[in-house]
Amino acid sequence: MEITSVNNTVVKETAKLLQKKYRDETNLFLLEGFKAVEEAFRFGIDIKKIFVLKEKANKYRFLNKELILTTEAVLKKISAADSAPDAVAVAEQKHFSINDIKNCKKIVLLENIKDLGNLGTILRTSAAFNFDAVILFGDCADLYNPKCVRSSVGNLWKVPVVNLKNINEMRVFSDYQKIATLPKAKNLLKNFIAKDRCIIMFGSEADGLSQTLIDFATDSVKIEMSQNVESLNLSISCAIVLYEIFTCK
Amino acid sequence: MEITSVNNTVVKETAKLLQKKYRDETNLFLLEGFKAVEEAFRFGIDIKKIFVLKEKANKYRFLNKELILTTEAVLKKISAADSAPDAVAVAEQKHFSINDIKNCKKIVLLENIKDLGNLGTILRTSAAFNFDAVILFGDCADLYNPKCVRSSVGNLWKVPVVNLKNINEMRVFSDYQKIATLPKAKNLLKNFIAKDRCIIMFGSEADGLSQTLIDFATDSVKIEMSQNVESLNLSISCAIVLYEIFTCK
Repeated sequence: MEITSVNNTVVKETAKLLQKKYRDETNLFLLEGFKAVEEAFRFGIDIKKIFVLKEKANKYRFLNKELILTTEAVLKKISAADSAPDAVAVAEQKHFSINDIKNCKKIVLLENIKDLGNLGTILRTSAAFNFDAVILFGDCADLYNPKCVRSSVGNLWKVPVVNLKNINEMRVFSDYQKIATLPKAKNLLKNFIAKDRCIIMFGSEADGLSQTLIDFATDSVKIEMSQNVESLNLSISCAIVLYEIFTCK
Repeated sequence: MEITSVNNTVVKETAKLLQKKYRDETNLFLLEGFKAVEEAFRFGIDIKKIFVLKEKANKYRFLNKELILTTEAVLKKISAADSAPDAVAVAEQKHFSINDIKNCKKIVLLENIKDLGNLGTILRTSAAFNFDAVILFGDCADLYNPKCVRSSVGNLWKVPVVNLKNINEMRVFSDYQKIATLPKAKNLLKNFIAKDRCIIMFGSEADGLSQTLIDFATDSVKIEMSQNVESLNLSISCAIVLYEIFTCK
């Protein structure tokens, strides 16, 4: 099939998925570019349709699926990237509940995370350091926003992500070590040994962890750093802590 | 002074600094928001002029300087941020040469880095872990691009940055340990001890380190990670390595 008009109905419907409202309604989301499409396919994500730049069609034959051959203008319209990717796919969102993760050993918790680049990057890092689940606690950014999907570089589905709003939902983790990352924690990160079952908790860059989660914690840890710098980027702090826990076994 | 028209000549001149060409010509750059302005002031950066949202003027009195009181529309026009910051300042760029850093002990080298968010974040991280200098090698993004300035969160000037194009310019570091970060290096990062004088080198996310810099290296190191993930974000890799060197003394 070939679609070259940006006013085509299918194109218009697809472009709506740039908005959270339509992603929520349809349970669909957008994948931009080769790496995202390839990794999604490999992980069994259900790819509903795919628009491909006509000249790049061969790269996408592995999908074994009818390609919608199209133009750069159409790809730009259905993508949030600054420059048009060579393909945009529509795929089905995957959802997890607390039951799916209640036996996970190593869990990352992010509270009120808003920055989409950080969120995608943290999912990539969590997969790299063998964390088993990510909890988005409170009012967090949408995992399926194209910018988050892009920042995860094909790692959006490797670790189950669960949205939780209420501290009571965390009761299933009562016997876990709950580690708050705080700038004034007593424990230094270096050579900190996390227990076998643990949840490592990060607040937002603007506000840090809420008192509710600080009270919920059983332990706290801080990253050693120069006093000349006020703080680190959230995805940076998270990566350093996850790497230390991954390697200090 | 008060300027409320987006067509005012001073506003138009200032908006030109969003482009590299004008930053290069004038040796000026833009600072957006309170934290960037405050840290620049504290570090003795020469602030030439500052536009402030009328209602936020009091926050900026500490500058001891005439404020240009203005509107959100003007601030939006002279800023690259998605939402208008409450102030935008015009300041003088600071430049360093290889002579300024030739006695530095711990140096970070970034080759062909293009991502502005990563570059700013790496400067913030380099300052946090007491690195003494950053070398931008080859064809790198502009340090003074507003997006890089923003990502550095007030840490753009804490570590001197030098642009180098040619490997011959690196001869002054002949007695340094030169560590290439490579996905297939023989040394694992954990507990890797860097020498007192060292340069730790990172390639771009797309291409990795060039053969020229790999040949220049005296050592190499890799970050331990799951085989399920192809790679880490560059600013993440850099942070993990810098943290390890900072703490493994």
